[in-house]
Amino acid sequence: MDTTAALTVDTVRLTPILMADPPLLNTQGVHQPYTPRLIVEVVTRGGVTGVGETYGDGKYLEPARPLAEALPGRSVTDLNGLFGLADEVCGDSGAVDERVDAGGLRGVQTADKLRLSVVSGFEVACLDALGKTLGLPVHALLGGKVRDSVEYSAYLFYRWAAHPEGGEADDWGAALDPAGVVAQARRFEREHGFGSFKLKGGVFEPDREIAAIRALADAFPGRPLRLDPNGAWSVGTSLYVAEELKGVLEYLEDPASGIDRMAEVAAATELPLATNMCVTTFPEIAEAFARDAVQIVLSDHHYWGGLHKTRELAAICRTYGVGLSMHSNTHLGISLAAMTHVAATVPDLRHACDSHYPWQTEDVITSRHVFRNGRLTVSDAPGLGVALDRERLEVLHRRWLEDDGTMRDRDDAAAMRKAQPQWQSAPVPRW
Amino acid sequence: MDTTAALTVDTVRLTPILMADPPLLNTQGVHQPYTPRLIVEVVTRGGVTGVGETYGDGKYLEPARPLAEALPGRSVTDLNGLFGLADEVCGDSGAVDERVDAGGLRGVQTADKLRLSVVSGFEVACLDALGKTLGLPVHALLGGKVRDSVEYSAYLFYRWAAHPEGGEADDWGAALDPAGVVAQARRFEREHGFGSFKLKGGVFEPDREIAAIRALADAFPGRPLRLDPNGAWSVGTSLYVAEELKGVLEYLEDPASGIDRMAEVAAATELPLATNMCVTTFPEIAEAFARDAVQIVLSDHHYWGGLHKTRELAAICRTYGVGLSMHSNTHLGISLAAMTHVAATVPDLRHACDSHYPWQTEDVITSRHVFRNGRLTVSDAPGLGVALDRERLEVLHRRWLEDDGTMRDRDDAAAMRKAQPQWQSAPVPRW
Repeated sequence: MDTTAALTVDTVRLTPILMADPPLLNTQGVHQPYTPRLIVEVVTRGGVTGVGETYGDGKYLEPARPLAEALPGRSVTDLNGLFGLADEVCGDSGAVDERVDAGGLRGVQTADKLRLSVVSGFEVACLDALGKTLGLPVHALLGGKVRDSVEYSAYLFYRWAAHPEGGEADDWGAALDPAGVVAQARRFEREHGFGSFKLKGGVFEPDREIAAIRALADAFPGRPLRLDPNGAWSVGTSLYVAEELKGVLEYLEDPASGIDRMAEVAAATELPLATNMCVTTFPEIAEAFARDAVQIVLSDHHYWGGLHKTRELAAICRTYGVGLSMHSNTHLGISLAAMTHVAATVPDLRHACDSHYPWQTEDVITSRHVFRNGRLTVSDAPGLGVALDRERLEVLHRRWLEDDGTMRDRDDAAAMRKAQPQWQSAPVPRW
Repeated sequence: MDTTAALTVDTVRLTPILMADPPLLNTQGVHQPYTPRLIVEVVTRGGVTGVGETYGDGKYLEPARPLAEALPGRSVTDLNGLFGLADEVCGDSGAVDERVDAGGLRGVQTADKLRLSVVSGFEVACLDALGKTLGLPVHALLGGKVRDSVEYSAYLFYRWAAHPEGGEADDWGAALDPAGVVAQARRFEREHGFGSFKLKGGVFEPDREIAAIRALADAFPGRPLRLDPNGAWSVGTSLYVAEELKGVLEYLEDPASGIDRMAEVAAATELPLATNMCVTTFPEIAEAFARDAVQIVLSDHHYWGGLHKTRELAAICRTYGVGLSMHSNTHLGISLAAMTHVAATVPDLRHACDSHYPWQTEDVITSRHVFRNGRLTVSDAPGLGVALDRERLEVLHRRWLEDDGTMRDRDDAAAMRKAQPQWQSAPVPRW
């Protein structure tokens, strides 16, 4: 079979799953016991299977299905063409929500953005299949790695010991105060070697979170620290926290919501502001950069439409003197592999990337990623360098099939109402 | 041999050549009878040879040599790493010239920019070798083509019938007035099917060039027309021409020199301004876009550092709502193949690309590119889809070896002095 034929897509399999998630707190609520993901498998005529992973809520599954049907007969090299194809076949899911999304805190949710997140899963699967067929790692398909390992930061969360629904608790216990956060950080450091720490904030009143960051600074002197309240604060509160934590934080992530507020905060503090909420699509870049609303963009290959698009974002940030780091939402080992490959190709990635991965006890790959000194080695194996564990995939898919519908769409506020029936998604700004 | 071994660079050959060039006029002077180019061959351990092409003046050869020595042992997939490598080994050639370059009208000449032009020749050669090894066309290594053919525009020049030194004249004759320009355009249309026309201006006083554009508009009603005086005009003259030719030109290219003047012109006319002079490097983008100095950037993969970088430029233009077209300097079929591959992958390339190619009677590839209806078909053959004609390469290299030094560095003003001994590079603005 010649290369062109071997690289032609034969079939696409979509497998929605539910993966276990600990009771991590954020400003919108708490993570549900299970969170949905979509596993994309692209099988070529050459018999090679590439895998990708993306968000799995219903609003993502809907556009994913027609795209999966349209792919057979096309080449896995045809990545630039995926966007036009998606525009053509996915339709408008109507899932436009201009509010901050209650589940993922994923910034503005538009049909365009949902479609890009779906495309990202397909793009990664195509790149994996392409790499496997050619005997090349994904990073080599992106112009080659410029580093042999990628640094990640510890992703600290306020959390409960167990989900309000009950069920098996993990051995982390609760973390609801500075001592709990520091203990969590120490375990992250011990188990994974992380050298920088991010705390998901917006959960408690700002002074409590300031105290937690100060406790981290005392426990880990000189280490990069970050605080991310997911846009929960007013401009005034943001500036108060920035003043309290200047010289302590590496950066403050999305203190306030939207470009207007972020620009106002940025103008009045020297603490760099990062975002994965007010700049999550290409059309948001020009205004945000012109107003100097953000100094660091946290890329997320799901939002931005894949690994090639992430490299384009990196080029734009480089050109405009804006820093780049990497955002993470709850994800599995396929996406972590993809994140590591693309991060390895970006020359000026000067901040450790975020990853929820250490919180995930379940996976769909045969061999879990292992952080050493807070870093992942960039794989030189063909494709992403991960293999699908079909048995585990089936178990997690069965869980999705058997779910009564309450977990298929992530809803952190609904989860919170199990413990606090009066809970409403907090108004923004909350403080 | 496994893929990794097969893709390792074994040797690099650099072959400077002199290629014939007709007596084409521009604001700096006239093309010399021969112009230098550098042919880069990257030979892998797998025995595959990739070819690239770039500028061949001494100031490019100097940084090319250490880069050629440093490449063996690296992979042809290691494209992102070329820039760091070049920074390391090429040194600073000292060839910094803040004036408009007399030969190539290539914008500001800095050591950084020369190095990027050199890297581009190596990057294209690596991509060609990679594609040939894998059995994939270069466009597939850039995410895949989004069109099957790329449109080019006719590149019209005021010209003499023969070089002042004498030598064999071609059969084009002189073109020094509107009738001559229209006759040239008609032949371009007849022979290549071009549907849009660009006139290199800055040669005669503006009214004469306005008359030529009007003659073209009469001869080819409704066709896209462009005029490019290479920054020869003052702001006042630029606005005068813009007023005279609004509704006639598709765009006006580099009427005035530098971002300041271009911004002033752009603010006072609705005619879109294009540039390949005031925005030729990434550091120039932010200011030019913020000031709305240009509405269309003419990319040139040589300047910008290769095909991946050209795609990054395209992404930036897309994000900022700035148009993209493609610039050309005197080049051979290797570069035209590279231009066509990358152009095929850029979704929003809405203007025909420029190419000097029809003026080049000599080439170093076995089978010349053929324009049909002004378009080139995007090759799906492995690599660039061109084969080196070693005999022709040797002939053109021998010419370079035997040159007494007068042609090895392109100097349009020196060429003009053969006819007009008092000629000096015109001050900018000239009119």
